[in-house]
Amino acid sequence: MARRRGERRERAPVPTTQYRHLVNPFDPLRILSEDQVAHLHMSAVRYLSDEGIRVSLPEARVIFAGAGAVVDDDMMVRLDPEMVSAMLALAPSEFTIHALNSEHDLHVGGRSTVFLPAAGPPFASDLEGGRRMGTFADYENFIRLTQSFDVMGATMPTVEAGDIPINVRHLHTNRSAVTLSDKAPFIYCRGRRRVRDGFDLMKIRLGIDSDEEFANRARVFTTINTNSPRLLDVPMAMGIIDFARLGQPVAMTPFTLAGAMAPVTMAGALVLQHMEAVAAITLSQLVRPGAPVMYGAFTSNVDMKSGSPAFGTPEAFKGAVASGQLARHIGIPWRSSGSSASNAVDSQAGYETMINMFGAIMGGANWILHAAGWQEGGLVASYEKFIVDIEMCQMLAEMFTPVRTDGDELALDAITEVGPGGHFFGTQHTLDRFEHAFYQPIVFSRASFEQWTEDGAQDAEQRASVIWKRLLADFEAPGVPDDVAAALDEFVERRSAEGGAEPD
Amino acid sequence: MARRRGERRERAPVPTTQYRHLVNPFDPLRILSEDQVAHLHMSAVRYLSDEGIRVSLPEARVIFAGAGAVVDDDMMVRLDPEMVSAMLALAPSEFTIHALNSEHDLHVGGRSTVFLPAAGPPFASDLEGGRRMGTFADYENFIRLTQSFDVMGATMPTVEAGDIPINVRHLHTNRSAVTLSDKAPFIYCRGRRRVRDGFDLMKIRLGIDSDEEFANRARVFTTINTNSPRLLDVPMAMGIIDFARLGQPVAMTPFTLAGAMAPVTMAGALVLQHMEAVAAITLSQLVRPGAPVMYGAFTSNVDMKSGSPAFGTPEAFKGAVASGQLARHIGIPWRSSGSSASNAVDSQAGYETMINMFGAIMGGANWILHAAGWQEGGLVASYEKFIVDIEMCQMLAEMFTPVRTDGDELALDAITEVGPGGHFFGTQHTLDRFEHAFYQPIVFSRASFEQWTEDGAQDAEQRASVIWKRLLADFEAPGVPDDVAAALDEFVERRSAEGGAEPD
Repeated sequence: MARRRGERRERAPVPTTQYRHLVNPFDPLRILSEDQVAHLHMSAVRYLSDEGIRVSLPEARVIFAGAGAVVDDDMMVRLDPEMVSAMLALAPSEFTIHALNSEHDLHVGGRSTVFLPAAGPPFASDLEGGRRMGTFADYENFIRLTQSFDVMGATMPTVEAGDIPINVRHLHTNRSAVTLSDKAPFIYCRGRRRVRDGFDLMKIRLGIDSDEEFANRARVFTTINTNSPRLLDVPMAMGIIDFARLGQPVAMTPFTLAGAMAPVTMAGALVLQHMEAVAAITLSQLVRPGAPVMYGAFTSNVDMKSGSPAFGTPEAFKGAVASGQLARHIGIPWRSSGSSASNAVDSQAGYETMINMFGAIMGGANWILHAAGWQEGGLVASYEKFIVDIEMCQMLAEMFTPVRTDGDELALDAITEVGPGGHFFGTQHTLDRFEHAFYQPIVFSRASFEQWTEDGAQDAEQRASVIWKRLLADFEAPGVPDDVAAALDEFVERRSAEGGAEPD
Repeated sequence: MARRRGERRERAPVPTTQYRHLVNPFDPLRILSEDQVAHLHMSAVRYLSDEGIRVSLPEARVIFAGAGAVVDDDMMVRLDPEMVSAMLALAPSEFTIHALNSEHDLHVGGRSTVFLPAAGPPFASDLEGGRRMGTFADYENFIRLTQSFDVMGATMPTVEAGDIPINVRHLHTNRSAVTLSDKAPFIYCRGRRRVRDGFDLMKIRLGIDSDEEFANRARVFTTINTNSPRLLDVPMAMGIIDFARLGQPVAMTPFTLAGAMAPVTMAGALVLQHMEAVAAITLSQLVRPGAPVMYGAFTSNVDMKSGSPAFGTPEAFKGAVASGQLARHIGIPWRSSGSSASNAVDSQAGYETMINMFGAIMGGANWILHAAGWQEGGLVASYEKFIVDIEMCQMLAEMFTPVRTDGDELALDAITEVGPGGHFFGTQHTLDRFEHAFYQPIVFSRASFEQWTEDGAQDAEQRASVIWKRLLADFEAPGVPDDVAAALDEFVERRSAEGGAEPD
């Protein structure tokens, strides 16, 4: 008996390798004049010299002072503009992060674009289970989903493993990141000892014995957020120092929400973002000249009625495009974000996410965080949002492929063959190409209303729910040699027995 | 007793005039090289000369023949490339459509951007009433909603008035368009007599007696779709001729869905679109040199699995950007579209609509049709989609405002005042600006999850449902003098008594 259409088994999307090594062909959009860019940069650098930035970590103040910075009793550090310029010039404009599997190596900078999943949400959400505290199982699920799609360049802590004690959480999550995926992993800067554990786990995974060998390539990465305005706190400064010492990349990302942690004007938020990023980059280069860094930008605004963070706003779009200009001005790869404030996987989520993503893509971003699964202003990692965002990222990646006009691409013979008022469906020109002519969606529906109704009238969220479950059911980890797996387990056990690591 | 938060009355959005006369500040995106643009243009023009286009209307063939075109027995018209170039050079690069209220006059071309609502769907849909045949009441409702938002430049037949007999439908809808709104109205090209009735109603509304006076300004507008591939049918050719004779603008829009009515390759679809648009523009200029026209582009693709039209695809984005380049190559204002294939007001609708809208905006489109309310590939006019699309259009319009970096915009004094780790909420710099600092959404929510849950956990579609109802309840028509209203009524009555007009 024929299966009814409504009963047909949803197939999981087939992984494809065509979304690795994405190169953005579009000239970056500009919203500031060259004079405005220079003015913002010079104003930020001058301000750092005149007023400075507060640095909570004594070791970081010593490093700054050693380079001639003026440090006062109030932990304020004032940076000499010439020293800043010299340090910015040392930071590489492009670099490569070497993944566990070299097919997932990431080029960072130039015209390269890397999409990454959400990072940081404390809550997880899915259609059936609803919104709840994130767990280790959720954490691992998002690593698996990230591994399943090549359009995601690297893995991220997409949700907190809230059910694992904080002192050993990093051990369990870092181990999962390097065993369930062969992409480059993220390591949190939540204290010196935890960063050390993350590096050590990666060394075991790679069979590397020495820090020297580990440091000869970028292999992991992190984000540090300055405590805007103008405060570089202890764990973040430690992270910059420790990552720079071992040549691992850091995205320096001020958290400049205009109207709250930053001035209410776009230019004010941007100049604050710029001075904080520049100060953080300067520290990294003082630690290790040439250490790989990114210029992070997260400028958005708060809702002036509620005080809540707003994302996917016109202001965020403008902030993103301007940030790209500022990053290129100092010649450093630019990290941007996809984001939305919506509490649901609804049309608002789609519009807002797209505004941020187009700000990033049109502005020429190199490293686009939170591009899948980010919901509720970053409080929630949503399984369904993850899937619809993957669709979006794949469509954006498809936009990067050129329009060819050579050979038979113009199809003039086919146009003649079909004739006026005809149809191209059956022509040889179409038959030769139709399988790969257009992007085939994984979750977006082009079914007729009648067919869609017969299939249960499911919206994109409901269809996405089917897809992530099947992906997890079908998931196969890339595999780790038994001895390496045992060594990783032994490390986690030993460090747990030692009490793990408390935050600094 | 204080009202509970969940009970608070939803306010209708306050109309604002800041979205009139929008100017896109961004340099248009390019996806084709200059050589590719010239190659596509020359290939299309050469093809029109070698193979030609079928023109069903004898009058149009006579016009073409009078300009030296070769016309064969099979209604095929072959155009001389030099004649085509001369005619394209006559078409204006910019013009103004004069609305009933001069505050709604529309500049078309250059860097100007006009957003317009959906046009053409046979079905209407709303959250409570579901999907059903569009009615005259729906038609009037969408005119009212369009009048309510300045970000919509002109009114459109956003849904068919399916309950009015076809022979008199145009009389009723055209009258409503010029009495419920003071924006410029659209007139369908569905037959010569109906176009005439539309012009006559507008003349009565304006108190204009002669065609000569009517023709001295652009006052109404239309779209004509070629019957792709390469067929200009009777009513469409009539429309071009009648609109051109009276100097009224026409958007020449081939319906080139790659893989169906157009070749499966993007270049093939574009070359077909270009030759059809060029032929139609040539006809208009032969009728009246300098008649205002737009270069319409609707190139998208079909879903190769189902054969259904797909919208908001990567291919549509690329097609839009390339179309903008082709339009600028021939110096004619460019009409593009927002669109989505989704059957629901869901995240898919948001992502897809945004891809098309960004293709239009980044490509520098002058005239963006279907920018509000378009659902299900154009089969449905959705009340809720209309509202969320208005939000999107307003946010896109906000992106057009510049980032100022002068005066106190850099907020350096405020940054000093607040100090490291502080907060900008209470500073004078913020207080002076917070009311107008950021775009205030009409339907998108930034409420916390807790607040949002307390308010009923409504998604954007549910919130939009409240808004359009209140807008309609509060609507006040701009008003028409009693004698004009009586004359319009008398005309509709008389023409109805005469039997209205059947299609040609």
